[in-house]
Amino acid sequence: MHEFELIKNYFQKLSKKSPSALNLNDDVFFDKKNKLVVSVDTYTEGNHFIDFKKPDLVIKKVIRSSISDLVCKGVKPKYYFISGSGNKKSFSKSNLSKISKSLNQEQNKYKVFLSGGDTVFSNKLSFTITSIGFAKDIVFRNHAKINDDIYVSGNLGDSYVGLLVLKNKINLKNSLKKYFTNQYFMPNIQLKLADHIKKFANTSMDISDGLLTDLDKMFNVQKLSFKIYLKDIPISNNLKKVLDLRKLSKIDYISNGDDYQVLFTASKNKRRIIRKIASNYRIKLTKIGSTHSISKKSSIIDHKNIEISIKNKGYLHNF
Amino acid sequence: MHEFELIKNYFQKLSKKSPSALNLNDDVFFDKKNKLVVSVDTYTEGNHFIDFKKPDLVIKKVIRSSISDLVCKGVKPKYYFISGSGNKKSFSKSNLSKISKSLNQEQNKYKVFLSGGDTVFSNKLSFTITSIGFAKDIVFRNHAKINDDIYVSGNLGDSYVGLLVLKNKINLKNSLKKYFTNQYFMPNIQLKLADHIKKFANTSMDISDGLLTDLDKMFNVQKLSFKIYLKDIPISNNLKKVLDLRKLSKIDYISNGDDYQVLFTASKNKRRIIRKIASNYRIKLTKIGSTHSISKKSSIIDHKNIEISIKNKGYLHNF
Repeated sequence: MHEFELIKNYFQKLSKKSPSALNLNDDVFFDKKNKLVVSVDTYTEGNHFIDFKKPDLVIKKVIRSSISDLVCKGVKPKYYFISGSGNKKSFSKSNLSKISKSLNQEQNKYKVFLSGGDTVFSNKLSFTITSIGFAKDIVFRNHAKINDDIYVSGNLGDSYVGLLVLKNKINLKNSLKKYFTNQYFMPNIQLKLADHIKKFANTSMDISDGLLTDLDKMFNVQKLSFKIYLKDIPISNNLKKVLDLRKLSKIDYISNGDDYQVLFTASKNKRRIIRKIASNYRIKLTKIGSTHSISKKSSIIDHKNIEISIKNKGYLHNF
Repeated sequence: MHEFELIKNYFQKLSKKSPSALNLNDDVFFDKKNKLVVSVDTYTEGNHFIDFKKPDLVIKKVIRSSISDLVCKGVKPKYYFISGSGNKKSFSKSNLSKISKSLNQEQNKYKVFLSGGDTVFSNKLSFTITSIGFAKDIVFRNHAKINDDIYVSGNLGDSYVGLLVLKNKINLKNSLKKYFTNQYFMPNIQLKLADHIKKFANTSMDISDGLLTDLDKMFNVQKLSFKIYLKDIPISNNLKKVLDLRKLSKIDYISNGDDYQVLFTASKNKRRIIRKIASNYRIKLTKIGSTHSISKKSSIIDHKNIEISIKNKGYLHNF
């Protein structure tokens, strides 16, 4: 059963009694009265991160994944809690020391504070991160309008190439290897965007499962489709180099998840303010398509203006 | 390494920058400015609960364990988040349906709302529960005074007998088996006490690891000792029956954890108000001893007024 259905069938009714849980249908929990925004997510070895050979980097990845949920909604994270499950080897003194050092760096970078958590013994390594912020308002999912522009922040695809490098499925020179694996472990969270996104976005989420899957999720209870232009999807110069050199197809690289960039829609009349904010605060924001009535099917248009079918929509946690 | 040391060595310094984290030295996180109280705990099969044969009861146990952290501080829980890690069998449709039904019952009983969470695949079953409440103030740990009275709510020891029944280590007639296993799975959280404890308690925590261990924890950075009278430690009539019948020693049964009763200290001049609140709101509150200067060793006094040594202080999560 997909995670979606699982949540819907058994747990959505339990949150209905609460005025604030957004029917478990959004990335975060928002209690407007108390201005409270909460994200809780569990990250497991072999699924959300490849292995624990580099605990200093893995811990950065899971912290950034967690605060990304708040940032994409226009909320600055303030507190985080870690619950680690693992064995003695995972939580050896040497690893704990590395984890602690990394957390300190993340705290300085993102202005967040470790506020609690615990450690338990398990043969399977996982981290549950709770991130908390405060905001009068957030940008919701499922609030897109017809004929909205669709935007993404930053670049897509680098993190996926990093994963391929770590799995030895692609061979690159060392400097590129390092670039892409760094993007995998340390995605560039758009913290500055948290201060501005509410000024223009109708709806937003972060890209964790992959662009196409997450587009579907962003509209999941809305009768909307999307049209995306492959040529407009922003990628790094390094990814462009790799694709050109190896004659790889861009579509295979831009929707595999772990990007932690912000996906949002905005009315056309917001184009000017979006350009201005992007320029003033040096945040890369790229228009990649638009929303349409459900009467049109969702589509992705390739470089030759041909509609192409989608092979890989990313993944859902599958039970 | 004990969980205490682990937290202290590697993570305490990370929370020092935050004004609210209580140096990770308390049961909850409290942000006074935002009136926010948070507890995050992970519960694993074979450690915090015996197995998953009764998912409907296990889920009640972990929810109650979590909200107990807030209640003992004088805070009513409002929201909870569940992150479940498990395999397909643990999260079968039949089990999910039972879990959902139990959660609904707990929501009605304790007025809490499911607000989010997720499920991930793991061969080891665990739940991380985040509970959130709002309060202007809480009762802290490590705020006891010399010559305070020490109190507990409810009865101790029933849950431990329930565990012995489940492990087939004690044989009882069916009605008693049911009574004690119910106490193990569904500890009686003192929700009403949350409204009143701030009126009289100097310091408080819930008893999860066992009375003697938790007494140590409650004073952990204070130069204080305790003196406890075994005869005054409250037990149920059913436990009394079992101890009498089998000539078992009370001390072996009252400090094994999972009681989820409230342990607190109060100045002697609060005795009247404590009696009054206990009587008005029908909350069982029992004075079991007092706090002393560290110059005296902590002690437990048996029925014959003899100081006895302590064999089992409960347990710490041991890495």
